[in-house]
Amino acid sequence: MNYPSKLLEEAVTEIAKLPGIGKKTALRLALHLLKQEEQYSLQLAQAIVKLRTETTYCQSCHHISETTLCRICSDTRRDRSIICVVEEPPDVLAIENTGQYLGVYHVLGGLISPIEGIGPANLHIESLMNRVAQGEVKEIIFAISATMEGDTTAFYLAKRLKNYDLKITTLARGLPVGGELEYTDEVTLGRSILARTRYDN
Amino acid sequence: MNYPSKLLEEAVTEIAKLPGIGKKTALRLALHLLKQEEQYSLQLAQAIVKLRTETTYCQSCHHISETTLCRICSDTRRDRSIICVVEEPPDVLAIENTGQYLGVYHVLGGLISPIEGIGPANLHIESLMNRVAQGEVKEIIFAISATMEGDTTAFYLAKRLKNYDLKITTLARGLPVGGELEYTDEVTLGRSILARTRYDN
Repeated sequence: MNYPSKLLEEAVTEIAKLPGIGKKTALRLALHLLKQEEQYSLQLAQAIVKLRTETTYCQSCHHISETTLCRICSDTRRDRSIICVVEEPPDVLAIENTGQYLGVYHVLGGLISPIEGIGPANLHIESLMNRVAQGEVKEIIFAISATMEGDTTAFYLAKRLKNYDLKITTLARGLPVGGELEYTDEVTLGRSILARTRYDN
Repeated sequence: MNYPSKLLEEAVTEIAKLPGIGKKTALRLALHLLKQEEQYSLQLAQAIVKLRTETTYCQSCHHISETTLCRICSDTRRDRSIICVVEEPPDVLAIENTGQYLGVYHVLGGLISPIEGIGPANLHIESLMNRVAQGEVKEIIFAISATMEGDTTAFYLAKRLKNYDLKITTLARGLPVGGELEYTDEVTLGRSILARTRYDN
């Protein structure tokens, strides 16, 4: 591609670094910005800078927050005896969207991954231990991806937590709702037979 | 959607104003930015601001340009006797990508649209007339969308240009290459029968 100006090329290069946006879409977006009022580009750029430089995190659960404690941690209606452990803030948003969970969260900020050099010390694990040590917690839910890193992290956490009188649970694995049995992968199908549940009408 | 912070909500709102990007994708992009190095968000924001505030346009053809004359207008190998008239800079990029055109361009900056209050005076039409008046131009190609606004603009330009000794042409309309006859709309198919061309082996 022969760009008519360096400014355009630079903008396309930066925009195309975003996930799921290729050079073609980036060019379309850049040309769109050129057609809009200057005000819009300035607002967009400012929102991006403010988001990245001014976002703060909850001191208790490490979720995105505007205050010392996030909206969930400071909500008195939430059950503080259940902590749902997740990898990143988007996972909190996904679970909140279901409306099925009334406990609190703990965002690890990643998963243990020896390959990427991420060990327990790089994650918010000590602060989870501190929360548990306060004695109010009765259940820990591992809401972590079913990958090798996720399994490693869950295994490590379970070992660290085994001296506390806690119920440790993990998300149910099985057929996705609306999923067809025929097209479900064999590992999921196998696990869903082993973990079969009583049929309720 | 209940955003955990105002900063995130504002960023999502601004990003979702981009064409083809909904709230869900905008949220994914914003959370991606939060996970990346701060440096990247700053570079992205700066590239957007510089693009919008510092982009300049060619004095002759009004295409995006870094210099007084754009790369195409200042290229001595281009044929200055043919001017291809287009609506916006992306159209120039699209035609340049074909590698089939060796003349120069003229970017109108829009199309005549009484509904949107865009008249000939809002477009780069006088500068096109000045270029033609210099006497070097032999052909004008209308490479304009086949919409009502496009037809109106072409009609207006043709009227303004009729006193000059010029060949005025327009892009061929017909079946898209690779398009199936069965699924071609009737207007295009009708025009392509009327404008049928000699079959060359």
